[in-house]
Amino acid sequence: MKKIPLILMGCGGVGRHLLQHIVSCRSLHSTQQGLFLSVLGVGDSKSLVVAEDLMNKGLSDSFLLELCRVKHGGESLSKLHDFGECRVFVHPESQGKMLEIASQLGKKTGLAFVDCSASSDTTVVLKQVVDMGCCVVMANKKPLTSTMEDFKKLFTYPRRIRHESTVGAGLPVIASLNRIISSGDPVHRIIGSLSGTLGYVMSEVEDGKPLSQVVRSAKSLGYTEPDPRDDLGGMDVARKALILARILGHQINLDSIQIESLYPEEMGPDVMTVEDFLGRGLLLLDKDIQERVEKAASNGNVLRYVCIIEGSRCEVGIQELPKNSPLGRLRGSDNVLEIYTRCYSDQPLVIQGAGAGNDTTAAGVLADIVDIQDLFP
Amino acid sequence: MKKIPLILMGCGGVGRHLLQHIVSCRSLHSTQQGLFLSVLGVGDSKSLVVAEDLMNKGLSDSFLLELCRVKHGGESLSKLHDFGECRVFVHPESQGKMLEIASQLGKKTGLAFVDCSASSDTTVVLKQVVDMGCCVVMANKKPLTSTMEDFKKLFTYPRRIRHESTVGAGLPVIASLNRIISSGDPVHRIIGSLSGTLGYVMSEVEDGKPLSQVVRSAKSLGYTEPDPRDDLGGMDVARKALILARILGHQINLDSIQIESLYPEEMGPDVMTVEDFLGRGLLLLDKDIQERVEKAASNGNVLRYVCIIEGSRCEVGIQELPKNSPLGRLRGSDNVLEIYTRCYSDQPLVIQGAGAGNDTTAAGVLADIVDIQDLFP
Repeated sequence: MKKIPLILMGCGGVGRHLLQHIVSCRSLHSTQQGLFLSVLGVGDSKSLVVAEDLMNKGLSDSFLLELCRVKHGGESLSKLHDFGECRVFVHPESQGKMLEIASQLGKKTGLAFVDCSASSDTTVVLKQVVDMGCCVVMANKKPLTSTMEDFKKLFTYPRRIRHESTVGAGLPVIASLNRIISSGDPVHRIIGSLSGTLGYVMSEVEDGKPLSQVVRSAKSLGYTEPDPRDDLGGMDVARKALILARILGHQINLDSIQIESLYPEEMGPDVMTVEDFLGRGLLLLDKDIQERVEKAASNGNVLRYVCIIEGSRCEVGIQELPKNSPLGRLRGSDNVLEIYTRCYSDQPLVIQGAGAGNDTTAAGVLADIVDIQDLFP
Repeated sequence: MKKIPLILMGCGGVGRHLLQHIVSCRSLHSTQQGLFLSVLGVGDSKSLVVAEDLMNKGLSDSFLLELCRVKHGGESLSKLHDFGECRVFVHPESQGKMLEIASQLGKKTGLAFVDCSASSDTTVVLKQVVDMGCCVVMANKKPLTSTMEDFKKLFTYPRRIRHESTVGAGLPVIASLNRIISSGDPVHRIIGSLSGTLGYVMSEVEDGKPLSQVVRSAKSLGYTEPDPRDDLGGMDVARKALILARILGHQINLDSIQIESLYPEEMGPDVMTVEDFLGRGLLLLDKDIQERVEKAASNGNVLRYVCIIEGSRCEVGIQELPKNSPLGRLRGSDNVLEIYTRCYSDQPLVIQGAGAGNDTTAAGVLADIVDIQDLFP
């Protein structure tokens, strides 16, 4: 039985789902792959719990499920001290402990750091463990979207880093793009709708509904962040675009991406409360969007909020697209990516499906972990 | 620099494109992956050429390109004897030579057998080299669609076999399905249009054109096999469906798949010549298809020739599908696959794009080869 020892960073929604998936896939992984995923430690921003006897065995399944319950209940990881079989380290001591384990195990048995947090704070540790022979699997976009230096450092050993769930959740976007790249098929153009929220918003305003109403219902459906401006500003899409562009070899930073925000600066979080924005701000945006929708329709087109990567161009914003294209036909909150290459020149390679959700995101992370098994002894 | 030594079986269209891709990707593979693909031998049904000093170096790039020219010109591989740096073995001696190389190199340095033929004859060798520590990469569907015993034998070491290009050419169908399986996301249903020819035919008859006319123009466009009945019979789609079903764990054979042929037995190749079928046979089929198209249209549906795998059901044939679904919207010769799972339950994961062509198929094979690099020392 091959063993993949791992440390999970971040145990919010995605991390909890990952632990549950790992536990429920035990027999599948053992039968089909001869594989055992051994969780040595789990950390959040405040603490790290580590298996007591981590050189010999990881945290038990019952411990991991208890951990999920504790976190789901909004309690601190340190509460798990009572449960036994673990040691708890508190920030900033927790970082040192992770590095200590990495240096002990990285080169000897291999060790994967799995980043399911949404924080830049993990970057410091991830950059160091790369040199200690560890693998890195990420759902967290932040470490890959800071400086080019950080990006290059994390990709020092390209086979040892996986990050499918940073773009389109579990959709096979990165895996497919990497296959295209390694087959030498030149990518001419990528265009994609990579935000479920903005996909939903744009297809609803296409039907003539006012933007203000659509955003409010998206919020009440749970499709948006608590402050919908976090979606409407386009920064999340820009981070995904940056990751795709960097994979294609573009040495660019977030600030070189042209980002169109759906709200003006004077309605920003520093100027207006969420309530004000939802109540009064949004109403002021209705007319402009409606006019743009109508103008597009008069050309037989629709509006979509997309990222475009083509040549040295990398931008994020509203585009007028043919109604009769994979992106134009998009309805609801699915993500769609069209990739144009030498092999897919007239008609693109299209990947479409749910691009958000903890379950799907965690599934993508788990597939990445299973996929690096050949790097372990 | 990591080296992947390989032997190519089959150097028709796909194999030739693969060799050209390998040569033109030299600097890409070396820079991005630190990888060198070393072609030790190339065989077809009649002969095998092997690098003279294969323990130390593979066939040179100029030799490989000369080989492509020779094969493209319809000449025998044995002609390459004059070119030097190789030894030529003639069938059946060639098989023994392949096994000899496999036993010498398989466990020591790793060796990949790359099957780009379209023949069942490779199965014998492939089954044996699996036990000698070799990897297998296939575009050839035949060895995976004979008996369950052969299939299981080839999958003895599941990490050492790749076969993306057996379904949908280079489209990331198998890679995506394997990711879904290893993340424990249960597949409820797969429905796909996996024949470019039949995709084209069904979308053209949808527009009211007679089947006979559509098939004739498909043939003149080069979309069909020399005898279009090879496409219209559905056997090629059934082989792809069988591969997908077996990956999902169905222990079934080709004869347990219900296959709908678009022509009746009395128009089969044993009864009617190709010319007769195209001239007179097809005309007799026009009315029935036209009526089915009209009946579907009256329900707001369209007809598609698809494979369906759901529960224990695995069938291939014409289905009435909603006009407004990824499959219903399909036009032309693209392939489309819809995968329904727990994560993709309401809306499927959709993969769409060109699913045929030597260039695309070879690109899929090359991506597979690069992807097994971690198995090599």
